[in-house]
Amino acid sequence: MTDDDTMLIEMCDALIHSRQHIGPKHLEAPGPDDETLDALFAAAAAAPDHHQLRPWRFLVLGEAARQRLSEVFVAALLQRDPEALPDQIEDARIKAFRGPVLILAIADLRADDPEVPTFERVFSLGCAVQNLLLAARARDIGSGLSSGRALHTPLMREAFGLAEGEHAVCFISLGTPRRSGRGRARPAVADFVQRL
Amino acid sequence: MTDDDTMLIEMCDALIHSRQHIGPKHLEAPGPDDETLDALFAAAAAAPDHHQLRPWRFLVLGEAARQRLSEVFVAALLQRDPEALPDQIEDARIKAFRGPVLILAIADLRADDPEVPTFERVFSLGCAVQNLLLAARARDIGSGLSSGRALHTPLMREAFGLAEGEHAVCFISLGTPRRSGRGRARPAVADFVQRL
Repeated sequence: MTDDDTMLIEMCDALIHSRQHIGPKHLEAPGPDDETLDALFAAAAAAPDHHQLRPWRFLVLGEAARQRLSEVFVAALLQRDPEALPDQIEDARIKAFRGPVLILAIADLRADDPEVPTFERVFSLGCAVQNLLLAARARDIGSGLSSGRALHTPLMREAFGLAEGEHAVCFISLGTPRRSGRGRARPAVADFVQRL
Repeated sequence: MTDDDTMLIEMCDALIHSRQHIGPKHLEAPGPDDETLDALFAAAAAAPDHHQLRPWRFLVLGEAARQRLSEVFVAALLQRDPEALPDQIEDARIKAFRGPVLILAIADLRADDPEVPTFERVFSLGCAVQNLLLAARARDIGSGLSSGRALHTPLMREAFGLAEGEHAVCFISLGTPRRSGRGRARPAVADFVQRL
């Protein structure tokens, strides 16, 4: 192997292993600009995609959309717990405003193709998002994925126009990390790989 | 930005955009050795994994396992089409022997955790596999994902000891590409991203 070959391997592995979840509350401005976001989404588009169904789409939530999202978070909380305290309501509300860029990742399972089962489609969304996260990491942009019960409510579907057959899977937050991630321990290869 | 910053971005984007599906029949020996495979699986283990459920595992199929797989492929074909012709049967059989390394990617949905829905778990498998494919690409190892109806049969589950709650999602083939991929056109960002 040449030095260049070795360097590429080292950079790739460093990229993959240094990507960490940074919670939205630890991501601050500036976030990526529109041109950078386009580059991240272009990375997402390079994901494996059986039969080219492109079984996903993304919403970038601007100010008005975040306002709507905060109302969804509060309403979903009150549906779950009508006695929620003012502090809990405020926590739910401000979640929608954390991190300079907030994206909703949606699995679109509507295509009629029996050769590509649902799981393959959701898997493809995972591939797309991993590309996006790594492309962000290469640019020193911090990222975090989040989810929660509100994501799967009719309120959410209605607020963001999800069609039947579409499923919001997670939020992607992007920004400048205020601190580095906690460096989570990863499973040992022997724990999840079996050689037959 | 320094030159190093720019180079990291360019290498990352080149890695992501140059990864292409290479069909197993176009992957030849040598495949990655055990040490290299371990590095690829370590990359997989760095995937986002909500609540650290590690909702996936992988089987590396050696000679005996491929023999078993070929029998599953043939039996699944004959269940679907009892009149399959000898050529079709032979096609089904040899599929199990293509590519120097063959891996089965399994979603393990057994953990009891209502905060991490099924789709998030399958998504995590997609992230893990994308890491693996990119780590392979950095090493000039060709890769392809494949699936098919046999994957979801009771025959398959039994032959490879899949538990209830486990789902085989795809095969990953690795090897030396005999030719480069077809350079598939990718969806335009504007087609799958909406700014609200």
